[in-house]
Amino acid sequence: MGIIGMGRIGNVHYQNLLTFDDVSVKTICDILVDEGWKEKYPAVSTLVKDYHQVLTDPEIDAVLICTPTDLHPQITIDAARAGKDIFCEKPVGFKNEDILEAYRVVNQTGVKFEVGFNRRFDKHFDRIVEYRDENRIGDPQLLKITSRDPEPPSLDYVEHSGGIFMDMTIHDFDMARFITGQEVAEVHVFGDVLIDDRIRKFKDIDTAVISLKFANGMLGVIDNSRKAVYGYDQRIELFGSKGVSRAENVLNSETTFVGKEGASADTPMYFFLQRYKEAYARELRSFFGAVRGEHPVACSFDDGIRAIRLAEAAKRSLLSGQVEKVAEIK
Amino acid sequence: MGIIGMGRIGNVHYQNLLTFDDVSVKTICDILVDEGWKEKYPAVSTLVKDYHQVLTDPEIDAVLICTPTDLHPQITIDAARAGKDIFCEKPVGFKNEDILEAYRVVNQTGVKFEVGFNRRFDKHFDRIVEYRDENRIGDPQLLKITSRDPEPPSLDYVEHSGGIFMDMTIHDFDMARFITGQEVAEVHVFGDVLIDDRIRKFKDIDTAVISLKFANGMLGVIDNSRKAVYGYDQRIELFGSKGVSRAENVLNSETTFVGKEGASADTPMYFFLQRYKEAYARELRSFFGAVRGEHPVACSFDDGIRAIRLAEAAKRSLLSGQVEKVAEIK
Amino acid sequence: MGIIGMGRIGNVHYQNLLTFDDVSVKTICDILVDEGWKEKYPAVSTLVKDYHQVLTDPEIDAVLICTPTDLHPQITIDAARAGKDIFCEKPVGFKNEDILEAYRVVNQTGVKFEVGFNRRFDKHFDRIVEYRDENRIGDPQLLKITSRDPEPPSLDYVEHSGGIFMDMTIHDFDMARFITGQEVAEVHVFGDVLIDDRIRKFKDIDTAVISLKFANGMLGVIDNSRKAVYGYDQRIELFGSKGVSRAENVLNSETTFVGKEGASADTPMYFFLQRYKEAYARELRSFFGAVRGEHPVACSFDDGIRAIRLAEAAKRSLLSGQVEKVAEIK
Amino acid sequence: MGIIGMGRIGNVHYQNLLTFDDVSVKTICDILVDEGWKEKYPAVSTLVKDYHQVLTDPEIDAVLICTPTDLHPQITIDAARAGKDIFCEKPVGFKNEDILEAYRVVNQTGVKFEVGFNRRFDKHFDRIVEYRDENRIGDPQLLKITSRDPEPPSLDYVEHSGGIFMDMTIHDFDMARFITGQEVAEVHVFGDVLIDDRIRKFKDIDTAVISLKFANGMLGVIDNSRKAVYGYDQRIELFGSKGVSRAENVLNSETTFVGKEGASADTPMYFFLQRYKEAYARELRSFFGAVRGEHPVACSFDDGIRAIRLAEAAKRSLLSGQVEKVAEIK
Repeated sequence: MGIIGMGRIGNVHYQNLLTFDDVSVKTICDILVDEGWKEKYPAVSTLVKDYHQVLTDPEIDAVLICTPTDLHPQITIDAARAGKDIFCEKPVGFKNEDILEAYRVVNQTGVKFEVGFNRRFDKHFDRIVEYRDENRIGDPQLLKITSRDPEPPSLDYVEHSGGIFMDMTIHDFDMARFITGQEVAEVHVFGDVLIDDRIRKFKDIDTAVISLKFANGMLGVIDNSRKAVYGYDQRIELFGSKGVSRAENVLNSETTFVGKEGASADTPMYFFLQRYKEAYARELRSFFGAVRGEHPVACSFDDGIRAIRLAEAAKRSLLSGQVEKVAEIK
Repeated sequence: MGIIGMGRIGNVHYQNLLTFDDVSVKTICDILVDEGWKEKYPAVSTLVKDYHQVLTDPEIDAVLICTPTDLHPQITIDAARAGKDIFCEKPVGFKNEDILEAYRVVNQTGVKFEVGFNRRFDKHFDRIVEYRDENRIGDPQLLKITSRDPEPPSLDYVEHSGGIFMDMTIHDFDMARFITGQEVAEVHVFGDVLIDDRIRKFKDIDTAVISLKFANGMLGVIDNSRKAVYGYDQRIELFGSKGVSRAENVLNSETTFVGKEGASADTPMYFFLQRYKEAYARELRSFFGAVRGEHPVACSFDDGIRAIRLAEAAKRSLLSGQVEKVAEIK
Repeated sequence: MGIIGMGRIGNVHYQNLLTFDDVSVKTICDILVDEGWKEKYPAVSTLVKDYHQVLTDPEIDAVLICTPTDLHPQITIDAARAGKDIFCEKPVGFKNEDILEAYRVVNQTGVKFEVGFNRRFDKHFDRIVEYRDENRIGDPQLLKITSRDPEPPSLDYVEHSGGIFMDMTIHDFDMARFITGQEVAEVHVFGDVLIDDRIRKFKDIDTAVISLKFANGMLGVIDNSRKAVYGYDQRIELFGSKGVSRAENVLNSETTFVGKEGASADTPMYFFLQRYKEAYARELRSFFGAVRGEHPVACSFDDGIRAIRLAEAAKRSLLSGQVEKVAEIK
Repeated sequence: MGIIGMGRIGNVHYQNLLTFDDVSVKTICDILVDEGWKEKYPAVSTLVKDYHQVLTDPEIDAVLICTPTDLHPQITIDAARAGKDIFCEKPVGFKNEDILEAYRVVNQTGVKFEVGFNRRFDKHFDRIVEYRDENRIGDPQLLKITSRDPEPPSLDYVEHSGGIFMDMTIHDFDMARFITGQEVAEVHVFGDVLIDDRIRKFKDIDTAVISLKFANGMLGVIDNSRKAVYGYDQRIELFGSKGVSRAENVLNSETTFVGKEGASADTPMYFFLQRYKEAYARELRSFFGAVRGEHPVACSFDDGIRAIRLAEAAKRSLLSGQVEKVAEIK
């Protein structure tokens, strides 16, 4: 297989692939490839700058698309036409027409396509779904997602991020659908800039409370902050007629200290690379399982589009100050 | 002092007063008083059916009003005119004009008046305020209140309760103000009947997500359910620029069991009588401290009115489906 | 009823008795009784200095013995002969012959006699016994008791305390029997002075690891310290063939804070008056239930003697440096 | 480098080595090597049955010895003479004379030698050492180690295991030294067969309480069981003059469920392969750091011998029923 785009997340996937017995990375493609990369990636036989070289290689069955978001749709289209199975980082794209074109081509060609919503593969969140599927929670009535980053991205990044809903909350929107198994019908947002005034110039916010009304009547709420000084805060709670399941933060250690001034415990793991380390590996394992036909793709193109639609509804609600119906988006 | 209204909550206060060295209950007033009550309340010297008998007794300095809500304003007015200090259960009344009239009389007469928002005296929630006051939380940015009852009240009760926001959420609205020290500016509600369809006929709901925008820009959310099968779920979280403080549920015991099928722990305390047992005692202690002039009243008539106003805003938002500004209420 | 000895623990019992509907304290007896006490104890009709005045009062059915330990046996004997039911603080006495004489008289007269091992009434520890009785733990195999005081007693107190095993560990020895339902057969002690060298002159220690072998083969260990700077550390764990049950410390609040430097939680409740507040009330309720014949006494004279025997075995093991068999004591 | 012995633990190390950029496994040596292994270990260039072929290969700088324990000393001697740096699984051997001979040769040749006490590299336990080193615990006074396996090994394994102290408690003995930074002076054991009577024929036990007296006066206790039905129970607590640090179990997930019957949480991770997965990787990373001279070896031959000496003292105490002084061993 081949990896297209070798930034931070491309490297995460590469490290995980090294430990898979049954998958080998033949080619890495990145516009920054140079001589030094041979030493850095000794297990890889080919290093290229142009992704078409990956797509024309008949020995490559599947590709990982880890480039900047705006390139996702075109590479997806080219890869699908080349008959490669595709794992694409989230979101699937920015512009609606590009995304829909890619969606059409993927469906026509029939290649496998998976979106990289890594949190679906987190064992802690997965446990909530298990409790739900075992009917221990009963009828779900309330969903609560807390999702706070340890620090805001750079202003440069913010400028091209598509805004907090498309960049950050999109994961929570996907989780809202994944954890409940339900579609969101209405969205309401209270949001503000409480951390760093400079992002106002991008018309973005850094703190939000996003209320959800699901199609089946159940309710939900997501709270987001770009800066939790104590680390990555990732908690989910699903409450229903028979009980509640809560996934708590994963701490840096299970070791506590109790002294005269009280007890202390470790902080949550710092950020997504630490917190979702295992999830990234499980995600790829699942993708290759789907490629081999062992099970359907865990997170489809359609899932990717639906999360974007929720992000869009949130954006509109923030502007209008009112409730937005998801069905009216696109 | 005297207690007017000897239902469930009146009895809670009576039990606590027995352990106070410096306060004695002279009279209990209740329309159901009969011969048998002498044995039930041996420490009390007078049992009457008409509350005016309490108010004309010069030996009585202060009264506890624990009657049904609709009687609160009139008894408050009469007690204030009789020069008694007043502790009144929440809410201070139902009808706006009655409440405002009582408010005026209390202010004119200058008697001490405290509203019984017992949760302000819970040591767990109080600890959050301590963290806030020590500036450990920094600038508060997000408030989260989970408040779920173990079971819905009877339909009879629901009919006269004033609706979920006036009966149940009113405590959470008071907490929202108490914990943050800020006023709420805007309210948005998603709510539905997810537990028992029969309450639809009272135009009431049983499940709600109430989003808050505070005057200073910070955000908040309250989630309510009338039925958490595992017991009374009472949690508060205040997140700010320097950290987060969370008050967790108080469990029936700190004892766990771990067996082949996993770990188990005890449920949260069943309901408010158990959960806020200590808070009820602290509340009265504080009231008598205020009566003796040691400190101001902890929860004023104004606090009572502001909570009602938030309940009213929530009611309107549920009906309108849109955001309601609190300043426009009344 | 009457209370003999009105020190710290006598006052704890007095406060609890005030809230009992069906028990009234007629007389308080203490050598320090003076005029001022009338105001302090308004609910009590008689204040005396000589305990015989309590015992000759035909209106008094039961007595609480809360005097210094060395007086326990004689008062017990006199109270039993006067036909009063007896609740006696632990330990039942210091000198073997005195204790045995009191034991004989109590048995002859047939009065009810309960020893004040308050921890038997702690709801957290009680839960372990419930798990055991429900056979969820299976065959008990290992018992672990952690019992650490927040600060050492005064040297004066230490001098007359009977040593750490008789004063402090005696509670743990009673718990070892209560939690397992088994008798201890052998005891081994490692102990030392690690906190304050001055107690060496009383041949006492302040830190100990006490290993237990039970008659049925199961094992146990108690660890004691006279000084845990973070508060009263009271934990018990019972491990068996089907699982483990652990009672954790009760904290001053369930509220945590998480900031940049990590998480913090509250300390355990400070000492026995706080930690076992509820247990003291339940203990008395149980005693009066036994007095009224509703159930057997919860903690018998025999239980009191057996705990002393274990303390004696521990003392000998510390001296001999070897294992001591409990059967050989006395 | 080369791996000698490719059983369960050899494979764990192999998987970890695959992710190291700067270390490559040239040769795997195992008596069971056959044609099929080439596919199983594609990253390895040489597969041999005789470990001498590993030792004579000049391209190999270091070896991992993962064979059965009785072969450790001879391979260690041969590897040291061949000038290879050595990582050897615990224990370093069974017979005293063999171990001492290997110790001498290693010292003479000056090769690096590390014993595989993997728990030293567990981040949770390590955190206790950090608290100790920051002087937050003050003077250590009490150490408590709980160490229980999820299920007993096969009887075959028990027969050749060297007994519970040499096979299982040896890790805890090493931890006792590592966590406190102190040497153990005296050992006392209460032990019994409480799980499976069949191991009596090997004169072994399955449940033990091992009390420790350290050279500096501090006390400790280890409790062991061969069968905790709920999974691998691995907890350590270090108590001192300024506070206590506790490392709790790592659970399969941080997700809980609370329903009518109470709360439930996940079990601890099943066994050492899961619980110490990260520690195994950190252990090897540390070894190769020592090989490259970046820091001293983290766990020396001397550490290996001292742990064995404690296991020997425990064995004697179980037989004698009395306290054994460690200084008298060997």
